[in-house]
Amino acid sequence: MAYFLRCKNLDFSTGNQPVAMFNEEEADNYGIHPGDRVSLLWSKSKKIIASVDVSNKHVKSGEIGLFEEIWQKHKVELGDIVEVSLESRPLSVETIKKKMLGKPATYAEIYALIEDISENRLSEVMTTYYAASGFVKEFSEQELYYVAKAMAETGEQFNLTTKVVDKHSVGGLAGNRITPIIVSIIASLGIYIPKTSSRAITSPAGTADTMEVLCPVSFEMDAIKQIVKKTKACLVWGGGVKMAPADDHIIKVSRPLALESYDKMIVSIMAKKVAMGVDCLIVDVPVGLSCKVPTMKDAKIIEEKFKRLGRRFGMKVEIMAIKATEPVGEGVGPALEARDLLRVVQQHKFRPIDLENKGCKLAGRLLEMKGYCKKGKGFEIAKKQIISGAAWKKLNEIIIAQGGKKDWNSEEVMQEYQRYEIHAKKSGRVKFIDNKAINEVCMNLGAPIDKYAGMHIHARYGTKVKKGDKLFTMYASSEERLKLGILGAGRNIIFHIG
Amino acid sequence: MAYFLRCKNLDFSTGNQPVAMFNEEEADNYGIHPGDRVSLLWSKSKKIIASVDVSNKHVKSGEIGLFEEIWQKHKVELGDIVEVSLESRPLSVETIKKKMLGKPATYAEIYALIEDISENRLSEVMTTYYAASGFVKEFSEQELYYVAKAMAETGEQFNLTTKVVDKHSVGGLAGNRITPIIVSIIASLGIYIPKTSSRAITSPAGTADTMEVLCPVSFEMDAIKQIVKKTKACLVWGGGVKMAPADDHIIKVSRPLALESYDKMIVSIMAKKVAMGVDCLIVDVPVGLSCKVPTMKDAKIIEEKFKRLGRRFGMKVEIMAIKATEPVGEGVGPALEARDLLRVVQQHKFRPIDLENKGCKLAGRLLEMKGYCKKGKGFEIAKKQIISGAAWKKLNEIIIAQGGKKDWNSEEVMQEYQRYEIHAKKSGRVKFIDNKAINEVCMNLGAPIDKYAGMHIHARYGTKVKKGDKLFTMYASSEERLKLGILGAGRNIIFHIG
Repeated sequence: MAYFLRCKNLDFSTGNQPVAMFNEEEADNYGIHPGDRVSLLWSKSKKIIASVDVSNKHVKSGEIGLFEEIWQKHKVELGDIVEVSLESRPLSVETIKKKMLGKPATYAEIYALIEDISENRLSEVMTTYYAASGFVKEFSEQELYYVAKAMAETGEQFNLTTKVVDKHSVGGLAGNRITPIIVSIIASLGIYIPKTSSRAITSPAGTADTMEVLCPVSFEMDAIKQIVKKTKACLVWGGGVKMAPADDHIIKVSRPLALESYDKMIVSIMAKKVAMGVDCLIVDVPVGLSCKVPTMKDAKIIEEKFKRLGRRFGMKVEIMAIKATEPVGEGVGPALEARDLLRVVQQHKFRPIDLENKGCKLAGRLLEMKGYCKKGKGFEIAKKQIISGAAWKKLNEIIIAQGGKKDWNSEEVMQEYQRYEIHAKKSGRVKFIDNKAINEVCMNLGAPIDKYAGMHIHARYGTKVKKGDKLFTMYASSEERLKLGILGAGRNIIFHIG
Repeated sequence: MAYFLRCKNLDFSTGNQPVAMFNEEEADNYGIHPGDRVSLLWSKSKKIIASVDVSNKHVKSGEIGLFEEIWQKHKVELGDIVEVSLESRPLSVETIKKKMLGKPATYAEIYALIEDISENRLSEVMTTYYAASGFVKEFSEQELYYVAKAMAETGEQFNLTTKVVDKHSVGGLAGNRITPIIVSIIASLGIYIPKTSSRAITSPAGTADTMEVLCPVSFEMDAIKQIVKKTKACLVWGGGVKMAPADDHIIKVSRPLALESYDKMIVSIMAKKVAMGVDCLIVDVPVGLSCKVPTMKDAKIIEEKFKRLGRRFGMKVEIMAIKATEPVGEGVGPALEARDLLRVVQQHKFRPIDLENKGCKLAGRLLEMKGYCKKGKGFEIAKKQIISGAAWKKLNEIIIAQGGKKDWNSEEVMQEYQRYEIHAKKSGRVKFIDNKAINEVCMNLGAPIDKYAGMHIHARYGTKVKKGDKLFTMYASSEERLKLGILGAGRNIIFHIG
């Protein structure tokens, strides 16, 4: 393609990259579209690449409007004729075409693609084709490694001088606020564990929501590094830093299809762990029909994929797959979960033992993976850190470093709220607890926006209850809001007693 | 899912479908997004489906804002509690998921999908997944039939009481303005041939651009029907009617990938022909490296696909694949091509014989396909219609019916324009004519926006020329614009003489 156009000074400035403005109708006929790149050639020594803008107002057919920058820098004269050629499409588009045809891509290609996605240079339509290409042909292990690596490298990285450990949960289970417990245990033993967490996504609380009851959680990278230098840990919201930013764009176009593959999920997790400098990762996988991972067989597949990908990054990965029969801990909702975890590290008499044990189990495995102790000894060491108060001391340090209140008392976390108790209508054994229904009722009560709304669960899975026994207590900010929860609890059978 | 919310009157009116407004943050937690559909249940007798809107200003957490329509129609009282459930995703999304997993779809599924696309109910991202799904697994012949049928049925249809014939060109060749010639011949014999054409897409002229030199071409469906009733034909721009509107949306997301398959191209053409009620279709396929179809082998593949799909619609399809060595006719650019075609039907001494013959050949085949005459007799009959003046009489009728000038004289079509002749630099035979370069130079001269800009070609492929012979003449509206064309012609070697 070679078109000749007469230069016109537009008297605009972009302060950025060179821009050439075409007559809209003419550009359309040339097959040149806004955002394309064109080369402008005056002579052999005068050639630049500009990005395309179009207008019917400022530029007539036969003209090309040039912005101040080009005008000055290249000493263009009014009426000069320039030869315009469309630059070949960005490499990323070619890479996406390759993947749509099921062909393999190199690291250079994938890096350029992921970089373009992360810097928002690709349209949503093109990003969707990229997401779709995994269905044409599954990415090879090599390519998954490339994608995770490129995602990590095109975003902010943690870059501590030492490697760190991490815990990740694939989610879907109410309660389960074990993260702060694990972080406190691990950091209390001198091992770095900088933890970023998400807020609730269609659930009554995420770790970031829970921690926010106790201290601020939203920080930029530099501030987080300061916190970690001080305490060897942090418990912050991941949204404040730009780790693996391409992932957010890909998730945005993947979500509407609701067909996320395990490969995509693992790459997305792994990218953030690589950016964090993790060398030992324990992944908490609740297994159950209402969880992200429905069966133990699926958990096995995920484990295998995680381990293989981890190996390429020199990262040990272990999966802790546990059948999800009920929430872990007794509280559901940010403040009720914060109370639970404080009760555990402060060894309160009403602490939920299942939460304490699960935290110690995962922390223990991390210690063993890191080589801190022999296999089989981790749990014991973790437990000791809690019983001795070392874990609480560490959590207190972290809360203070993040700007929270000193010396929280677990019993001061909850506010005076409207309550409503639900009692067993008959005697029998608790045969099933509906996690999904718990989530829904807690959201009816106002969680996670209302941090103090939620539910305290009294009866546990497998235990016997008598008619009239308390099953759970609902908390809401007002009578009116409480009523919404009561209606929800009436609609959903949470406890199946048989 | 079951959430309970308290009703609030929003005092807005949409005049359209019922809308329910959620608190933005809360809706996000519920996994309810703008555009989703929710069912609102007050009691067994009171249930409606509403579409979701969100706001942080008008609706607090725990509330649902209802628009005037719902309020009045369902006698909602302030503070009433409503049970909200997310309706399952539209069927189309499920169909796209199926196709992304390579599974077959039924007609009902494809119809609903194409209808959603045509009515802009699917996001660009979802439409892209649909376009991508053809790469996961090629659509079966059955599915291609379903898609074409659904595309036709979800748009405007021509619905004449009689079946019609049509001609289609897959494009890419300069000049080639045979359509008005074919239409004139066929209609002059009493056969219906309502023809919609496109404007130029990255070329110096489309049939609609050329006809617009002679008469208006932009009409709505009713007006077109009147023209066809009067003349048995029309020569209008297709953009004025909404035939197979889903196709436009699909093309929009397909174009950036630049990987259109023959299947997609054929379905897209076929949908419009079905909407038109075509029973005989002749497809003009210029074959060459700079055309849409590069080789004769590809033309064969296309022919086979066309015939098979046509058969399902009871439509006879024939392909006329001709090696493209040079433009058909001598003019390139809207007015220069209009002059060519008038010269043919008016039997002017300078008429381009190749254009006349190609027009008669295709018209003749259509007559044979339609059963108007025996095989082998069509060309002769077509030629007679031209020589007798019947074709010109018919074209004149059509031009008048479309509101154009009566009795055009071919030699009055062009305006007094700036001209520049290019002469042969050496003697020899014309061994190659670069169609792409001709297109580019004509666009440098201002075509198709400037209807009178373009090129007249004097030397034809295969002939001998002497040094100094005229090769072609360029036309532009001004000296300045002419200079752009001259530069273009200097940059591109159009005639290869050896």
